Amino acid sequence: MLPFARVAIIGMGLIGSSLARAVREAMPTVQLTVSDASAAVRERVAELGIADDVADNAGAAVVDADLVILCVPVGAMAEVAAEIGPELAPDTVVSDVGSVKESVARVLGAALPGVHVIPAHPVAGTEKSGPDAGFSSLFKGRWCIITPPPRADEVMVERLSEFWRRLGSKVDLMDAPHHDRVLAVTSHLPHLIAYSIVGTASDLEEVTKSEVIKYSAGGFRDFTRIAASDPVMWRDVFLNNREAVLELLGRFTEDLVALQRAIRWSDGDALESLFTRTRAIRRSIIDEGQDTEKPDFGR
Amino acid sequence: MLPFARVAIIGMGLIGSSLARAVREAMPTVQLTVSDASAAVRERVAELGIADDVADNAGAAVVDADLVILCVPVGAMAEVAAEIGPELAPDTVVSDVGSVKESVARVLGAALPGVHVIPAHPVAGTEKSGPDAGFSSLFKGRWCIITPPPRADEVMVERLSEFWRRLGSKVDLMDAPHHDRVLAVTSHLPHLIAYSIVGTASDLEEVTKSEVIKYSAGGFRDFTRIAASDPVMWRDVFLNNREAVLELLGRFTEDLVALQRAIRWSDGDALESLFTRTRAIRRSIIDEGQDTEKPDFGR
Repeated sequence: MLPFARVAIIGMGLIGSSLARAVREAMPTVQLTVSDASAAVRERVAELGIADDVADNAGAAVVDADLVILCVPVGAMAEVAAEIGPELAPDTVVSDVGSVKESVARVLGAALPGVHVIPAHPVAGTEKSGPDAGFSSLFKGRWCIITPPPRADEVMVERLSEFWRRLGSKVDLMDAPHHDRVLAVTSHLPHLIAYSIVGTASDLEEVTKSEVIKYSAGGFRDFTRIAASDPVMWRDVFLNNREAVLELLGRFTEDLVALQRAIRWSDGDALESLFTRTRAIRRSIIDEGQDTEKPDFGR
Repeated sequence: MLPFARVAIIGMGLIGSSLARAVREAMPTVQLTVSDASAAVRERVAELGIADDVADNAGAAVVDADLVILCVPVGAMAEVAAEIGPELAPDTVVSDVGSVKESVARVLGAALPGVHVIPAHPVAGTEKSGPDAGFSSLFKGRWCIITPPPRADEVMVERLSEFWRRLGSKVDLMDAPHHDRVLAVTSHLPHLIAYSIVGTASDLEEVTKSEVIKYSAGGFRDFTRIAASDPVMWRDVFLNNREAVLELLGRFTEDLVALQRAIRWSDGDALESLFTRTRAIRRSIIDEGQDTEKPDFGR
């Protein structure tokens, strides 16, 4: 039996449109209704034919759904929740895919009293945006972290877990504040640093932008990939996971200053010892199937 | 006509062994002699059959060579230069592949007076090390930066340029100090930051190492690739390009602190504006053929 029979997806960017395609592929009998705030995106999604129905607005999309998944930037959650609230059927589960969970749980919980709000976060994505960038296998072999609020309905949590497993994901349950601290390390800080270094590199006087581009194969190009991610989505992540990101940034800067000092004082042993230690982490990530073993990512 | 007929390569790691394979493929009639400080590596290279001869030491390898390329860590250049000096034939060109050029030019120039010392740097590599990690196509479509010292013999510089073009590289000439500033941006700082963030992530108390590994697909795993690069090679890079790296680190930290402040004061516009600007650089790197367009590096 399917965990949900009528699914509504709000927001048809990279993640929402991948989700639509994945649902179609894994659970073809699910009735799938989608919507997006942009008329151009709605039109494109209709052309792509990746949903049964494209509704004109979020409210219309969720009527009769037993699962609603919000795939909008974290900062847009409150507005969308206000739109869908009056239209939700009893016992509908409302979930999302946002990279921050504590603030989303708070916003959705406040806007949708009495609704089964069960936030979730599939740890998957690419640097591309929009409905054409999505693909059905995005979630396969990746983790989906579900953060049930205290007193969440266990049956509904299990149904949502089963939904993600059907899409090929591995599911973990976690409380929202811990999720936000973990993702600050594995996702938010890396994005912030990548954005920052790419910004620094574009502002130099002695080295031209065209030189930076030409010789980027020395390492820089790896950072530009994640610094090409969706600007609004990431703005909202940092505004909504402020404490965890700031705390971690403090530690990172401290460690970087220690390295800076080692370079200034020619402390080769300190450098070599850190550089040796970091190799082991890469090995574990490959062993866990979370990255490819191919040198240079197979490029 | 071949630019060089008898080539010696000292150091059979990723770069040296890739170079041997590339020379074999592109210029099969070149007489190729190689060596390495490690007996185990020399034995493995002989098994791999990627050179005509594996000499017991650097001095023996360079006898009769008209081109010698040093593929050893930057900090080992002085020692190798002392070994090969007495054995070099007149008019031999001595070059290298180090990621730092000003200090290498100084060290080789001092150790090998009267020799055609023409340092070079192929901007290519992977995170793997050792003779088994090398492959013949590593330099294809990549830039090789040659940094001829003042008063270098122009004919020899052109022969060395032609040598790299035969391996599929595009060649640029640059003065050594400018090279070091450019590479500090496109390679050295990215590596330092990647090593640093991977170090920070392994030292947390609230988030376990296994969580960092599990959820690394959120962005962190991209950093672990370059933080798996050879520790000794990179130690030497930082010790030998100190001024340029420290100057750039200062700017990077300044920019990062500005971002930190934008997060603390919820300045969404500042964040979004930077995150939008950084997308264009990625586009240019792909247009220049220095990275793949495939989302997520095609993973």
